[in-house]
Amino acid sequence: MTDAREVRRHIREGKWRRPTAGLAPGFVQTNLVILPRDLAFDFLLFAQRNPKPCPVLEVTDVGSPEPKASAPGADLRTDVPRYCIYRDGALSEEVTDLGSVWRDDLVSFLLGCSFTFESALLQAGVPVRHIEEQRNVPMFVTNIPCRPAGLFRGPLVVTLRPIPAALVARAVQITGRYPGVHGSPVHIGDPVDIGIRDLGRPDFGDAVTIRPGEVPVFWACGVTPQAVAMQAKPPLMLTHAPGHMFVTDLRNEELAAS
Amino acid sequence: MTDAREVRRHIREGKWRRPTAGLAPGFVQTNLVILPRDLAFDFLLFAQRNPKPCPVLEVTDVGSPEPKASAPGADLRTDVPRYCIYRDGALSEEVTDLGSVWRDDLVSFLLGCSFTFESALLQAGVPVRHIEEQRNVPMFVTNIPCRPAGLFRGPLVVTLRPIPAALVARAVQITGRYPGVHGSPVHIGDPVDIGIRDLGRPDFGDAVTIRPGEVPVFWACGVTPQAVAMQAKPPLMLTHAPGHMFVTDLRNEELAAS
Repeated sequence: MTDAREVRRHIREGKWRRPTAGLAPGFVQTNLVILPRDLAFDFLLFAQRNPKPCPVLEVTDVGSPEPKASAPGADLRTDVPRYCIYRDGALSEEVTDLGSVWRDDLVSFLLGCSFTFESALLQAGVPVRHIEEQRNVPMFVTNIPCRPAGLFRGPLVVTLRPIPAALVARAVQITGRYPGVHGSPVHIGDPVDIGIRDLGRPDFGDAVTIRPGEVPVFWACGVTPQAVAMQAKPPLMLTHAPGHMFVTDLRNEELAAS
Repeated sequence: MTDAREVRRHIREGKWRRPTAGLAPGFVQTNLVILPRDLAFDFLLFAQRNPKPCPVLEVTDVGSPEPKASAPGADLRTDVPRYCIYRDGALSEEVTDLGSVWRDDLVSFLLGCSFTFESALLQAGVPVRHIEEQRNVPMFVTNIPCRPAGLFRGPLVVTLRPIPAALVARAVQITGRYPGVHGSPVHIGDPVDIGIRDLGRPDFGDAVTIRPGEVPVFWACGVTPQAVAMQAKPPLMLTHAPGHMFVTDLRNEELAAS
C-alpha cells in the first residue's frame, strides 16, 4: 500500500492489524496520545516546554476524533491498527477500536516519530543500525530531567543510533532539518554523561551492534511523553500500541525546515 | 543599558517607562499575553495551530509571574514598562504594574516579536524601511483565516517590509532561520492576493515608502493573537502596551534554527 488514505481505509476495515513501518512510504507517521480535557492543557504545555521529545504535529478539537490538518476525514478511533488503554497509569487492555471507550471530553495529540528522519538518514547514506539488524530501536532513560508542567514530570528518554565518526556531522545536519520529529541529537559521545551505564542493556527496545569507529549518538524519543503521562496516572489515557502508528496525509518533506 | 537584567531592574524600579526598542541589544524581546487558566488551553492550542503569527517562547505555570526558562527571577507583573488591561474584549486601562489585578489563575504567554529578525536582517545588509524612517511597522489584516481553536478565531495580521528585488531571497533565508519569531514570509508580491487593497493605508502602525524596484514582503505578525484574543472577549486579558516589550535573558542567536 503506497497511499496514506488507502492504508487508513484498510486499517479501518480491519484488514491490517500489524505494525505500520514501511507502509505508505514518504508519508508522516505519528505517535498518538489521547487524554481527558482537564489534563490536556498541562500535557500541551509539557510538550511546548520539551519540544525535542514531544514534537506536536496536531492537537484535535475537544471530543473530535478527526485530525483536520494532517488527515482530514480520518477517524482516530478506528484508523490505527492497535491501541493501548491505560487506566490510572496502568495498561488495562489492548484493542483495535476505541469506539466503546470514546468520550466527548477527549483530546488527541499527534506527535512526530522518528520514521521520518530515519528515512532521510538512509537516503543520505547514513546507516541506521536497528533497521539493518531488523530490531526495535534501543531506548534509554537518561538523567536529564524534562521541564515539568503541572502533573507531568520525568526524565528524558533517548534513542541510540551508532554512527561512523565521519558521518556524525551529516547525521546532525540531516536530523536538524526535522525539528517536528525530534530534530538534532541531544547528546553525542560518552553515554555515562547522561546517566546511561550499559549500551548493551537498553531500558526499552533491543540492543544493537556498535562497531569500531562508531560514535553513540542519542536523539530525544517519543516514548518520553507516554512515560511521563503514565507516571501522572491519569484516570484514562489512550495511545497507539508500540509500532502501530497513525499514518497522516503529510509528506515527510513537509516537515523539513528550510 | 546593555544587559537584560539591568533593563528589567530599571523598569521594575520605575526608572524606564518608554518603549523598549534598542534596549539590551542582542537579547530577545517578547510580546506578552496573560489569560485566565480556563482560556489558556484554547489559546495555547491556537498558537500551536498558528505558529507563524503565534511563536510561543514560554508559558508560565498557572498563577506564577516568573518566566523560569527565559528570564529566571523576573516578575511579569512589574518588569514590563507599560501594560494594557482588557475587560470583556475592550481596553479598560493602561498601568505600569499588574500587582492590583493579578490572580492565582492567570497564565502568561511570551510570544516572539520581530525585533529579533529585524536585527538579523540589518546585520545582513537588508534594509528595514520603517526603522530607516523611524515609524511603526505597517500592519494589515489579511483575508487569510487562522486555524481556529475553541473560542479563538480570526484573520491573520501581517507586517509589510518593502525589500529590493535582489535581496528578497536573502530576506527569506535570514528570517527562515528564526521560526521562533515568525520565520519566513507568508506572502511575497501582490498584496491583493491576500486581501490588502492599499499599502498606503495600514490597519495598524504607519505607512512606509515603497521605492521603485522593491517588492512588498509580508510576515505573520504578533498582533494576530492579541486581535484574536480580544474578539473572544475574555473577562480579563492583560498584555504589554504596544512597543513596551518584555526583555528576556535569551540571546537572539539562541532562537536561530540550525
